[in-house]
Amino acid sequence: MQKIESPKNEQIKQIKKLQQKKYRQQQGRYLLEGWHSIKEALNNQPEKIKLLLVEADYLATVAPLAEQATGAQLIEITPRVTEVLSETVHPEGVFAVIDNQATVVEQNDQPRPWLVLDRVQDPGNAGTMVRTADAAGFAGVVFSEGGIDPWNSKVVRSMQGSQFHLQVLQVPDLKTWLLAQRTAGYQLLGTLVDPNATDMRAFQPASGAYALVLGNEAHGMAPELAAEMDVNLYVPIFGHAESLNVAIAAAILMYQLQLN
Amino acid sequence: MQKIESPKNEQIKQIKKLQQKKYRQQQGRYLLEGWHSIKEALNNQPEKIKLLLVEADYLATVAPLAEQATGAQLIEITPRVTEVLSETVHPEGVFAVIDNQATVVEQNDQPRPWLVLDRVQDPGNAGTMVRTADAAGFAGVVFSEGGIDPWNSKVVRSMQGSQFHLQVLQVPDLKTWLLAQRTAGYQLLGTLVDPNATDMRAFQPASGAYALVLGNEAHGMAPELAAEMDVNLYVPIFGHAESLNVAIAAAILMYQLQLN
Repeated sequence: MQKIESPKNEQIKQIKKLQQKKYRQQQGRYLLEGWHSIKEALNNQPEKIKLLLVEADYLATVAPLAEQATGAQLIEITPRVTEVLSETVHPEGVFAVIDNQATVVEQNDQPRPWLVLDRVQDPGNAGTMVRTADAAGFAGVVFSEGGIDPWNSKVVRSMQGSQFHLQVLQVPDLKTWLLAQRTAGYQLLGTLVDPNATDMRAFQPASGAYALVLGNEAHGMAPELAAEMDVNLYVPIFGHAESLNVAIAAAILMYQLQLN
Repeated sequence: MQKIESPKNEQIKQIKKLQQKKYRQQQGRYLLEGWHSIKEALNNQPEKIKLLLVEADYLATVAPLAEQATGAQLIEITPRVTEVLSETVHPEGVFAVIDNQATVVEQNDQPRPWLVLDRVQDPGNAGTMVRTADAAGFAGVVFSEGGIDPWNSKVVRSMQGSQFHLQVLQVPDLKTWLLAQRTAGYQLLGTLVDPNATDMRAFQPASGAYALVLGNEAHGMAPELAAEMDVNLYVPIFGHAESLNVAIAAAILMYQLQLN
């Protein structure tokens, strides 16, 4: 097994570049930190793991599971290397480089819904929405260009490993993607902070084949997207709050639609 | 109207101390920043405003509403003062000092539920839960000692002014507070990340008279509190996520219980 002791090592420098969006897009990879998420990768999508970087203390924990990641190189690192790669306050000294291409999965007999983020900006909101979509049994989450990058380290931290349980895509043009879904038989459900939209309690999707679109924190959904929807839903407000946080609204809607 | 130009002014130094919990508790006040939240204070609970600190640019906007805050002193400040008081990246130059004592409201004929936070730590989670409780029509939110301070500036920012629409309390002993609520006829609903707890879909509160308790991010509810509950609920997980973010779980439960 290779061991890297110096943070100035060329390979470490290349890996550290994955903290920047430009290099993530060039290389089609992102840097994942922390044992909880890496364990989810090893248990669910080991083929996506390209590199495992582990301090000596953690080797005995990681090595048995690492055998499942046949395409991954396992490298021992030192605390000095951890210090350079880590973006957390209390690093565990466990990192992985992950292929960020979505796995193409076979079409399920029982279609499952998609969550679509139209220019959501806040990394914590976006990552939490992926985690909630996983819990709600969704097929995947689609990120638009112009919003937060799904492989930003803060987004990935909030996902808590859910990216290995469902699909995470970034598409250049949401409208094109959504219209293709409609052609494939999906209902398109938008969301508006507008009591004149359809109260979520008054709507039931025809099946699990639907895409639910949430919009930007400040501006909501783009009007040209809202105009394409089969229905635009709103979450009723019983008190005096003007609106809900977007990740909260997404959660209430996902559970409401799945439980209906 | 008084004008303060220097950030070294003694009054400004005292106000800046409100960024620390110790001084907030000593003075029973907190510092609020940003026009959106301060407008909510002026429109809903002007009696809680002790001071308004406003840059010249904003005076014309604030002054007409400020007349409602008869107990508040209005002070003009300079951008240099804003720089010292602000905890945001793009300060607006509008601040208020707010009395943090809960307003005692008359008992409603229609009792409304309470949200209870058992040692919730993350400021964004706690503030978002207050905002969501407002939207869901709850009577108030109770914070425990040992969790995040409700008047921490990050918590307050996430509340988005909802603290002026419902009650926000901090109590020294949650168990005592909860048992008093039961004596007053409230049902006590706990939450557990445990499929052996009661599925939220299988439970309906008898009326709006209930308290819903959410626990610490890492450890959940204290077992000695969970043991006192009339029922402990869990949010069903349809996918593979191990759990939900606590603010998300709270939102799903509050809406589920209110819509049932």
